[in-house]
Amino acid sequence: MTIAPGAPLGRSNEAPDATNMKALVYEGPGKKAWKDVPRPVITSPTDVVVKMIATTICGTDLHILKGDVPEVEVGRILGHEGIGEITEVGEGITQLAVGDRVILSCVSSCGKCANCRQGLYSHCLDPEGIAGIGWILGYMIDGTQAEYVRVPFAENSVYKLPKGMTDAEGILLSDILPTGFEIGVQYGQVKPGDVVAVIGSGPVGLAAVMTARLYGPSKIIAVDLDSARLKRAAGFGATDTVNSGDKDWKKQVLALTDGQGVDVAIEAVGIPLTFTMATEVVRPGGHVANIGVHGKPVELKLNELWIRNIGISMGLVNTNTLGMLLKLVAEHKLPAKKFVTHEFTFDEMLKAYDVFGNAAGNDALKVLIH
Amino acid sequence: MTIAPGAPLGRSNEAPDATNMKALVYEGPGKKAWKDVPRPVITSPTDVVVKMIATTICGTDLHILKGDVPEVEVGRILGHEGIGEITEVGEGITQLAVGDRVILSCVSSCGKCANCRQGLYSHCLDPEGIAGIGWILGYMIDGTQAEYVRVPFAENSVYKLPKGMTDAEGILLSDILPTGFEIGVQYGQVKPGDVVAVIGSGPVGLAAVMTARLYGPSKIIAVDLDSARLKRAAGFGATDTVNSGDKDWKKQVLALTDGQGVDVAIEAVGIPLTFTMATEVVRPGGHVANIGVHGKPVELKLNELWIRNIGISMGLVNTNTLGMLLKLVAEHKLPAKKFVTHEFTFDEMLKAYDVFGNAAGNDALKVLIH
Amino acid sequence: MTIAPGAPLGRSNEAPDATNMKALVYEGPGKKAWKDVPRPVITSPTDVVVKMIATTICGTDLHILKGDVPEVEVGRILGHEGIGEITEVGEGITQLAVGDRVILSCVSSCGKCANCRQGLYSHCLDPEGIAGIGWILGYMIDGTQAEYVRVPFAENSVYKLPKGMTDAEGILLSDILPTGFEIGVQYGQVKPGDVVAVIGSGPVGLAAVMTARLYGPSKIIAVDLDSARLKRAAGFGATDTVNSGDKDWKKQVLALTDGQGVDVAIEAVGIPLTFTMATEVVRPGGHVANIGVHGKPVELKLNELWIRNIGISMGLVNTNTLGMLLKLVAEHKLPAKKFVTHEFTFDEMLKAYDVFGNAAGNDALKVLIH
Amino acid sequence: MTIAPGAPLGRSNEAPDATNMKALVYEGPGKKAWKDVPRPVITSPTDVVVKMIATTICGTDLHILKGDVPEVEVGRILGHEGIGEITEVGEGITQLAVGDRVILSCVSSCGKCANCRQGLYSHCLDPEGIAGIGWILGYMIDGTQAEYVRVPFAENSVYKLPKGMTDAEGILLSDILPTGFEIGVQYGQVKPGDVVAVIGSGPVGLAAVMTARLYGPSKIIAVDLDSARLKRAAGFGATDTVNSGDKDWKKQVLALTDGQGVDVAIEAVGIPLTFTMATEVVRPGGHVANIGVHGKPVELKLNELWIRNIGISMGLVNTNTLGMLLKLVAEHKLPAKKFVTHEFTFDEMLKAYDVFGNAAGNDALKVLIH
Repeated sequence: MTIAPGAPLGRSNEAPDATNMKALVYEGPGKKAWKDVPRPVITSPTDVVVKMIATTICGTDLHILKGDVPEVEVGRILGHEGIGEITEVGEGITQLAVGDRVILSCVSSCGKCANCRQGLYSHCLDPEGIAGIGWILGYMIDGTQAEYVRVPFAENSVYKLPKGMTDAEGILLSDILPTGFEIGVQYGQVKPGDVVAVIGSGPVGLAAVMTARLYGPSKIIAVDLDSARLKRAAGFGATDTVNSGDKDWKKQVLALTDGQGVDVAIEAVGIPLTFTMATEVVRPGGHVANIGVHGKPVELKLNELWIRNIGISMGLVNTNTLGMLLKLVAEHKLPAKKFVTHEFTFDEMLKAYDVFGNAAGNDALKVLIH
Repeated sequence: MTIAPGAPLGRSNEAPDATNMKALVYEGPGKKAWKDVPRPVITSPTDVVVKMIATTICGTDLHILKGDVPEVEVGRILGHEGIGEITEVGEGITQLAVGDRVILSCVSSCGKCANCRQGLYSHCLDPEGIAGIGWILGYMIDGTQAEYVRVPFAENSVYKLPKGMTDAEGILLSDILPTGFEIGVQYGQVKPGDVVAVIGSGPVGLAAVMTARLYGPSKIIAVDLDSARLKRAAGFGATDTVNSGDKDWKKQVLALTDGQGVDVAIEAVGIPLTFTMATEVVRPGGHVANIGVHGKPVELKLNELWIRNIGISMGLVNTNTLGMLLKLVAEHKLPAKKFVTHEFTFDEMLKAYDVFGNAAGNDALKVLIH
Repeated sequence: MTIAPGAPLGRSNEAPDATNMKALVYEGPGKKAWKDVPRPVITSPTDVVVKMIATTICGTDLHILKGDVPEVEVGRILGHEGIGEITEVGEGITQLAVGDRVILSCVSSCGKCANCRQGLYSHCLDPEGIAGIGWILGYMIDGTQAEYVRVPFAENSVYKLPKGMTDAEGILLSDILPTGFEIGVQYGQVKPGDVVAVIGSGPVGLAAVMTARLYGPSKIIAVDLDSARLKRAAGFGATDTVNSGDKDWKKQVLALTDGQGVDVAIEAVGIPLTFTMATEVVRPGGHVANIGVHGKPVELKLNELWIRNIGISMGLVNTNTLGMLLKLVAEHKLPAKKFVTHEFTFDEMLKAYDVFGNAAGNDALKVLIH
Repeated sequence: MTIAPGAPLGRSNEAPDATNMKALVYEGPGKKAWKDVPRPVITSPTDVVVKMIATTICGTDLHILKGDVPEVEVGRILGHEGIGEITEVGEGITQLAVGDRVILSCVSSCGKCANCRQGLYSHCLDPEGIAGIGWILGYMIDGTQAEYVRVPFAENSVYKLPKGMTDAEGILLSDILPTGFEIGVQYGQVKPGDVVAVIGSGPVGLAAVMTARLYGPSKIIAVDLDSARLKRAAGFGATDTVNSGDKDWKKQVLALTDGQGVDVAIEAVGIPLTFTMATEVVRPGGHVANIGVHGKPVELKLNELWIRNIGISMGLVNTNTLGMLLKLVAEHKLPAKKFVTHEFTFDEMLKAYDVFGNAAGNDALKVLIH
């Protein structure tokens, strides 16, 4: 019999000899394995351990696997989204209990530092020295594509799952919906009557499309190269679609406005071309909200733009609106489940990666592993 | 005797044969003249004609004279700042009268279009078809470096000069103070307790320095290559100065913060280097406010910045805060007169250009011509 | 043949002898007449004269007729809502033309004074000295229940009617929809996810119900004493209804929240009881938005409320959102026509008053006279 | 030797037999004692125990002593302001340590509930069930007028004292400065150029006067009945003073504006008369910020005010700006020490009450007990 190392620090309802679990482990560029690893244990009084009920795969995970994110160490368990049940709580935990079913935020934040007090959870000053930013799960510490995960700063980083919410609804709240809403819609300052263009109809672009209507825009224009994706965007709430492969795509977008341009252009791809497209269709006084994760610098035509009174925003999600979005999803005001196109069991983790890794070929949006 | 062509359209107190005046005329790249030209007349019912009391020269005028702004036609009278006395009013004018002494906004705006109703005077939709933006004086139409100027959309574009306000105070309100305040401080979202860095200590940078304190920052750091300018910045309200010629300038700036960076970085030069400097010293969640007029694109390192939750703003002044700033200057809460380093008469216009054209050599900031 | 006195001041397409018209005239408390009166003429260069296409009656008109508003002079033509066609324009008008079909704002504002520049059109400082507030039509000057009306400050006070918009849609934009949206929803600071209670399901309360969803609330609770009105409210967008005649009405409202109270309580009746109700159901940190026109003071329980961190707002509509709402109505995003329950011709004006005067008995909401 | 009951729960540097201390105890209406009581101990993992360095007395303490706050139990230690050194920390504490010198917020808040996440610490939902609001020290639990105090939710409720900050500066940050700033200035929405009237020149009124300038107002008018207090207000930053005992006080206030009224009227007394005064001098579109603690309802003249587009706010301080104000005080940008008029030792607690209890007679503002 082995004593779980963390046992003396917390309160648990697990059998004391259950020390291993399955997890998706990064084994260096191009390599991954679904294999046995030790279960996580409580290491700080503000931790909880969660038994995963459902998880999913993000484009970021594919980047890490390719080796594009060198700060990720070999042996790291990937994944930063998920729902699960608390099995152990640290001694400082007073607002969560073993047995609570929770949604995990993709961002871990202490809630008390100067940044957290401003709701800037994405840049938690991280008093425990884990890492420099709020996103650490499946990046600087082990993540959610596993049977169990340790969640630091738990009371500020998990949300109780309402009764009746499905896995497909809950899983979207970890990252995708808040990202589209906070970094696209809120940073973009969408307001009633606005014309909004969302460039890119992948998961996060569609999250922006779906949540943009919370600020009453008059039009939500989905812009993408792929007709199938544009058709899907219409089902998520886009009132108009423009294929950016068309030579006159820009003219088509402007024709949907009063001629001056869109009020808000949301970039949801992450390449220089789409960023520039956003700056070209935004009206004077409007806003470009960049959601995309960029691998290269972009050219910003300040020589043309300085006089146009536009704002440009960017950032990592804070999930400070997770609780609010959770309420709207629970009340069926936001059809979050639409994002899930494929479902797998935990044992099919590698198959899930195969399908999501070829999202276009499989017409996949989000895969639900549960 | 010649009848002024505009006479039938307006109400005037000028002798009917006064049809000529002196003005600073752009005569093609590198050429200018202080010469006799016809006086302006009312051409729209919303116009007034103003007899200039004082004007000044802006860096933009130098750019135009160099030929950098090809849309400016030969024969154009330059200047977009000034104070004067109304000598003629159009038939639609009900709130201004002949004899009113006024400050001219550098932006001409109708006040009624969709953009003007939002306070976005810089992008007046311009129902009379004069030009595409709010700044037209000394650019698309004749300007203020003259004995008389026609001001379109006058009721929304001039402000009555309070009694007792000096020329040196009034002249700063046409452009410089509102630009520093609106595009630097307000777009930068300065708030109480913030650390603000202002990169560039020319007139508009100093206007940002001076007006930043209206939002109660804890520090205002002036950053410039020139020690003399930094010394002057301290007199305008900078609490700290950093010479950007120092190898460790960035370290010096960060040392004045909690280590994360400044809350607001205001760019007041207009070249790629200074814009990049601003993005390098701003904290996560902070703001870069570009005031500079750029001639080239800049490289925006979105690959590094996408995750930093910063906002970037830019734009042409609206002068929608001119009335408020006017009140503060009138009450001696903002020492606007500090900007004027040299004074000239109208007849010394060319000498004024010589001095301002070599501002560094003459230690000139703003020249007052009156 | 009589020359219209205003003729020399403006440009008109009307026959010069057309000097009389029919209008609804206040003849002292309890007395009104639909009778011949002189047609209005241009008296200021910023005026237009409009031939009315449609008008309606507001509860305020009934108050005036009862004599409750003593500052209204005998002989006054009532009405402050309507759509029409411009038949004459003042000499200062450059952005409107004879023949334009327009919606009249219930508020007349110069657009240039310090208040108007802040969008506070309701408190136009009124440089022409007509009256002390922006609402003057049918109150301090002759109004819209007539064949013609003079509109002062026209360029800031009328909006072009889009092609295809029906009279029933257009008429709602003069007052009711902007009032519900600006004074209820915007002053109430409704935001995504909020629970909103609207107390009172008359026209303005329903306008708040209909427009509240532009800010993505999770629930809109209609509260009224009348079951039929509550049923109608559901058709306007209320997600829940509570009959305030029920003893436990407050408990019912709180049960629709997390127990703390509603985020925003909108008062749309105008009596002390309903104002107090609003303060009783609002959560700490929430907002009470008073739309109601009150005839008596109310008791504000500051002894209980001082500690609750609530905000209270009130006010006359600015119609600064009229242009935006117009766009949404034109695009069928707001079903404005639902408000019109009865239609009449201009000749049936007195009949329209009879029906609207007994709105409850006739199940009337808004009457359209066209 | 007695073992401190809380010892096993936390980490302490105190001798284990130190179990008693002196404290100011409420012994029923009109009765208080400075006497021996048991020292507090850790009762929750998020607690700390603090050895007090300095405390002060608030007007609220006098109200409690009079018996005006019946929910306060006999035996309660009073006081909700203070600075001290941490002597014991609960097991969940990771960001504070024994020996840290801290400022205690008057509000205790968990930092994680829905209200705290919005910065509404004053209405912490209080998951530990201590009380219904964030202010509990010296009210629902034992307070700071003692040698030691237990601070619940410590990581969100105390702030580290910067080196070099004096007791007189630190003590002001517990309550008075944040209250004046948050509930007066921020809720009042003071902005650059505003004219602000502060009614009442007691400690909290003067805190509003002192902090109002963080938003760049053009005038700060102190209004009070007492000339000596008005004179003092000028030393705190009031640009103008008006004695409300003058018959024409209102006229005097309006004469300091453009005639329309003040932009922001801050009520800092807590009686119906002063609240009404605030509503009478505020301009259309302006704001009344109530800071006063009221014992009676007030009459709100909605019959006159409904049309004036004013906002009214009120509330308990959140101290969410404490960290920012702390920075400004530490940098000598806010002369907090000006508030302290009298100093006492802890042993002179009853004398301090005598002096503060007759503040007018002793010309006392804040008393510092250290």
